Amino acid sequence: MKVLGVVVEYNPFHNGHLHHLKSAKKLVNPDFTIAVMSGNFCQRGEPAIVNKFARAKMALLNGIDVVFELPTIYSLQDAGGFAIGSVGLMHKLGLVTDIVFGSESADISFLEKISKILYENSKEFDYLIKRELKKGLSYPNARKFALQKFLKTDLDTIKKLENSNDILGIEYIKAILKYNSSIKYHVIKRVGAKYNEQNLSGKFSSATAIRNAIKSAKSIKEYVPESTYLILKDEFKKGRGPVFLENLEQFILSEFRLKTRENLENIYGFSEGLDKRFIDSANISTNLKEFIENIKAKRFTFSRIRRLIFHAIFNFEKNYMEFSNKLGPQYVRVLGFTKKGQEFLSYAKKKSKIPIITNPSLKNKILKDVLKNSERKWDFNISLYNWQFEKDILASNIYTLFYPNSSQRKSGIDFRKPIIIEG
Amino acid sequence: MKVLGVVVEYNPFHNGHLHHLKSAKKLVNPDFTIAVMSGNFCQRGEPAIVNKFARAKMALLNGIDVVFELPTIYSLQDAGGFAIGSVGLMHKLGLVTDIVFGSESADISFLEKISKILYENSKEFDYLIKRELKKGLSYPNARKFALQKFLKTDLDTIKKLENSNDILGIEYIKAILKYNSSIKYHVIKRVGAKYNEQNLSGKFSSATAIRNAIKSAKSIKEYVPESTYLILKDEFKKGRGPVFLENLEQFILSEFRLKTRENLENIYGFSEGLDKRFIDSANISTNLKEFIENIKAKRFTFSRIRRLIFHAIFNFEKNYMEFSNKLGPQYVRVLGFTKKGQEFLSYAKKKSKIPIITNPSLKNKILKDVLKNSERKWDFNISLYNWQFEKDILASNIYTLFYPNSSQRKSGIDFRKPIIIEG
Repeated sequence: MKVLGVVVEYNPFHNGHLHHLKSAKKLVNPDFTIAVMSGNFCQRGEPAIVNKFARAKMALLNGIDVVFELPTIYSLQDAGGFAIGSVGLMHKLGLVTDIVFGSESADISFLEKISKILYENSKEFDYLIKRELKKGLSYPNARKFALQKFLKTDLDTIKKLENSNDILGIEYIKAILKYNSSIKYHVIKRVGAKYNEQNLSGKFSSATAIRNAIKSAKSIKEYVPESTYLILKDEFKKGRGPVFLENLEQFILSEFRLKTRENLENIYGFSEGLDKRFIDSANISTNLKEFIENIKAKRFTFSRIRRLIFHAIFNFEKNYMEFSNKLGPQYVRVLGFTKKGQEFLSYAKKKSKIPIITNPSLKNKILKDVLKNSERKWDFNISLYNWQFEKDILASNIYTLFYPNSSQRKSGIDFRKPIIIEG
Repeated sequence: MKVLGVVVEYNPFHNGHLHHLKSAKKLVNPDFTIAVMSGNFCQRGEPAIVNKFARAKMALLNGIDVVFELPTIYSLQDAGGFAIGSVGLMHKLGLVTDIVFGSESADISFLEKISKILYENSKEFDYLIKRELKKGLSYPNARKFALQKFLKTDLDTIKKLENSNDILGIEYIKAILKYNSSIKYHVIKRVGAKYNEQNLSGKFSSATAIRNAIKSAKSIKEYVPESTYLILKDEFKKGRGPVFLENLEQFILSEFRLKTRENLENIYGFSEGLDKRFIDSANISTNLKEFIENIKAKRFTFSRIRRLIFHAIFNFEKNYMEFSNKLGPQYVRVLGFTKKGQEFLSYAKKKSKIPIITNPSLKNKILKDVLKNSERKWDFNISLYNWQFEKDILASNIYTLFYPNSSQRKSGIDFRKPIIIEG
């Protein structure tokens, strides 16, 4: 049985995503295709434009059989943590045979070579990166120069790795090595707009450009499948979107005006004096843009700063995060499935090494049943299971509070919204 | 030297306040008149409609010589804590000879009698109140019935004490007893609208009614002195008001969705299962009105609930609050003065038992100078001094974030705004 896995955010699902999905299927020819998707908060450190259920529906209507939620504590991490979460989830599910990811270079042997070196020499390499970081470089740049030194190669070769998809690709491969997983990986050359392209540019526009267009009330009809268009329209009509980071402006500034350095001491990622930078900036800034720009320095990327905002707000404690990056995800939450996907899930229930959560209200019962079944080879930790899951719930409860329509802002959407079944 | 002290909120300063002030002066015939005024958050558990500097200016233009800020940790307490703060400040200032407060009953001997009994029998009386509270009554009602039992009198006599000014009056007298202060007190019968009257009703409309009128964009010109009108107009024009509790809606709901019962364990006032009520309500409510109504029970007043919101947000720790209510305020912050007030301040500098802060940037220097002057009989605690003052700064930093005009939202207004000098 061949199972194709893709790691996605679908924020929102657009033509480029559809193209990638079709190409991946052509390449692998799978029996089933599943997606691991960021929930309500994405890797850029922003709330998704519409909630995870609406985005899962887009996926199911466009060729995905089952959508699993990447736990929030991974979706809000850098490429390394994001890959540990998403690859870990597929690995522990026990059925995924192939993953396909987009790549700017599409040079799989080069990506593989780099990944192996990084994985096998992580300590020496960490040391080199730290040396570069001390020069005031951002993490991506520090890694680039460290890599050049380590590989004793020219900068041009290394430069191939500057693009976000390649960076992610390397992390996926590293994660496969980490889990000692038998999942095979493939790359597809990325088409169309760059990941970060701000403006609409032809049929394959970036998700960033599409979100910007929505913000300025431009039509996005030609850049997304019709199903996406209709789902977005319906969500907006009901006042459950669009949700932009800016909606949280006063909330975020308040949070950091109220925090002390002590409060941030145990939060993952607030090293290098970032605690002080965040608090000081909240006090001198009058809006979110200023807030982020006042924190920014050459060595911190904008995405990292935005992600850290939510690390602090959701209280991502250092020890639990490190434990999470060591053990990987502790459950698979199903957001939705097709009829075909249902068949997949029946296999997964027999194979998965972590509990499968289809109904969050039954989370404790699921845990009990799992523990009773002692013949199966489980691979999870109960307190981490509870902690990771709580953060998903919390993330939803804050997310829904920033819907445009206040009557929709009740919390507990995870417990009320029935699983999405399409097709 | 006769010094008249009044305890006020001036939210905003209106005709009734002016009338009260004139009557008080006629009664006492003082050399100086000073006010202790709530800062940016008022006793009803709401942000003031405009900031404390604008409101201090209104006071100075209408007959007050010096405006002192009641520390936020007292302005956001019930009548008892509010009185301990305001009377304590006047007492420790060392110069106030007379205070005058409004009263619905204006029966000073009755108020005095009650106050003495309550003060002298606080333990027995507390026990009686607790017994009534257990029946599910609100604190004001429990006190009323406890009083009836304690005084062995009829309910009609006690009913005289149901009004908010009389309740406050009793607390002022109790505070004077507590500090063993020589300050004399007088009452003036309250004229015009009731404290809580929602609608405009003639020349003497309540501050509540005036704020409601501002909210619905009605003219308030005939209900306030011209100076108040012009100051409000100017503040609104600059986008520094009006600030309503509703502006903080999403922020407040987010805060309580993020909190755990553990977080509220050490916050002053979260007894009787209120921690759980607040958190549960934040999750099921979609707006602030619902949030407060879902917490409400017969035994909790709306004001108490609103005040508790800010106790939690500003982290009013139980131990520091109890210590504060034992020792009283630890500094006097001057918001503004007239030429005449300047003369008063020169006397106060020689007499005050707590440091006088005219420039918050010099807070640490002031402390040093004070400590050097060991001949003076000081009456304050350094760590409490720092803690109480920090809360005023924090309250301003959150307050300004909810100005309508985002360009005005920078924090640190306490360090930037020069002291108000008028007339």
